[in-house]
Amino acid sequence: MKSISAQLCGGIEAGGTKIVCVTGTGPDDIRAKTQFTTATPEETIGKAISFFREEIRKGPLAAIGIASFGPLDLNEKSPTYGCITATPKPGWANTNLLKGIQKGLDIPVFIDTDVNGASLGEQKWGAARGLDAFIYLTVGTGIGGGGIINGRMMHGLIHPEMGHIRIPHDYKIDPFPGSCPFHGDCLEGLASGTAMIKRWGKAPEDIPPTHPAWQLEADYLATGIANFIGTLSPQRIIVGGSIMKKQGLLLAVRNKVKISLNNYVNSPEITENIDNYIVPPGLGDLSGVLGAIALAQQNI
Amino acid sequence: MKSISAQLCGGIEAGGTKIVCVTGTGPDDIRAKTQFTTATPEETIGKAISFFREEIRKGPLAAIGIASFGPLDLNEKSPTYGCITATPKPGWANTNLLKGIQKGLDIPVFIDTDVNGASLGEQKWGAARGLDAFIYLTVGTGIGGGGIINGRMMHGLIHPEMGHIRIPHDYKIDPFPGSCPFHGDCLEGLASGTAMIKRWGKAPEDIPPTHPAWQLEADYLATGIANFIGTLSPQRIIVGGSIMKKQGLLLAVRNKVKISLNNYVNSPEITENIDNYIVPPGLGDLSGVLGAIALAQQNI
Repeated sequence: MKSISAQLCGGIEAGGTKIVCVTGTGPDDIRAKTQFTTATPEETIGKAISFFREEIRKGPLAAIGIASFGPLDLNEKSPTYGCITATPKPGWANTNLLKGIQKGLDIPVFIDTDVNGASLGEQKWGAARGLDAFIYLTVGTGIGGGGIINGRMMHGLIHPEMGHIRIPHDYKIDPFPGSCPFHGDCLEGLASGTAMIKRWGKAPEDIPPTHPAWQLEADYLATGIANFIGTLSPQRIIVGGSIMKKQGLLLAVRNKVKISLNNYVNSPEITENIDNYIVPPGLGDLSGVLGAIALAQQNI
Repeated sequence: MKSISAQLCGGIEAGGTKIVCVTGTGPDDIRAKTQFTTATPEETIGKAISFFREEIRKGPLAAIGIASFGPLDLNEKSPTYGCITATPKPGWANTNLLKGIQKGLDIPVFIDTDVNGASLGEQKWGAARGLDAFIYLTVGTGIGGGGIINGRMMHGLIHPEMGHIRIPHDYKIDPFPGSCPFHGDCLEGLASGTAMIKRWGKAPEDIPPTHPAWQLEADYLATGIANFIGTLSPQRIIVGGSIMKKQGLLLAVRNKVKISLNNYVNSPEITENIDNYIVPPGLGDLSGVLGAIALAQQNI
């Protein structure tokens, strides 16, 4: 008998740069996959609907999950439930991604943040199996964080916006004022890909691993992560995103987190085994879109 | 019929300065109360046992809850479960408070952090009724935070240590290096009562409300709280502790949190109704000890 969690579903990972759509039952059974640039909402949602209509012709999907960039309105009682709210991405503010997809396809659709979705995927199939309190961070164009606490995704008032915490910033070492349009030098304003491009005048992939940019980057990320440990006490921290692929960065972050905590959080997971505590995503670049499938499967 | 949650229990709030013990079924039915200075572990635990033995002679208690200063070992599988671990408080490191109380009284005993306990009390009887994601902060000799996320107390790897997050510190405005023995200028190192005494050379209660100390204090606390909002997205933030009783401080903190978030967390709870979002404890000074009773009642 096929378990209910293995039902064939659709998954959408909606990012500010690209959209990935898949159908499948899990990481070992991805039936179809497409991706395209995030254009206007109409064009983008239209392309996603076309992909799924074509797939549904081959066989039914039980539901579709969306793991989206935000901020999102996730209050089911709100008239704008499923909307992207305050994004600076042109044309996308107040787009109702949930209803847009729902209208085009006559099946159940569920939505959560990209990082909460990725957490769900990592818990089901990746680096967080068996854990009930952990976070997933992404460090790319922006910085986001979500997670699972006491077994369920973090929502609360809205959802976490972990990239927007304030951390120490020494202007003598780093005179860059920060790139966040809302907060200047918050974590995202200091350590996102956008911040790196503005500070150094080139793309992160063109900055060599030996450049001092990466020690500064590791400092900021480690401070942010140490703050998340103090605030949330996660059992593990998964760190994905394009920036984290830079050679040596994850290692430097782990070392600096240990130094920053200074044995106050006195747990062998951190003091003796940090390589297994701060880890890359088990699902690689597919955490978000597989998480979207997991979200659909969980809600059917 | 009396509901199970109204069972007569004992509660212990163990602080670094004083210990409060009560028996009762809830805030409207406190049967007995005592408090004494936190001396050596032997003397202090002995006094608590004597109080409860005397009370048990009058009638049985179903269980005892302890809401304690920490850090604590809350891993039930650990051989040191129930111990206070890395405290700088002389004589108390590695004291097993749970087993100490259990040994002296032949009834079930349960333990959690002071701030998790206070959260539970506030959820059951105070300012967090009906909420399933909120935090409780205390600003006194130290700074601590705990809370309830997805309906249950925050544990994870160990338990939160919210006082020990790093926040911006402008040495030109505030040359004080911070008082935390582990981290120097973390939130607790900059904004606890201990930090105020060291920075200003007098006790917080002797610093008048118009002194610039309080604007600085509000700045640090607001930055910390804005970080907790970004990280956790709580539905409400309860702020207790002796320092928060200073006239005007809570109001200043609320204003500065709004300025710090700068409408990014675009929720009417914050943008329009912050007086109902950042609030004092509904149970006043009794959150901790009533929370200890709630902890006992919940675990029976």
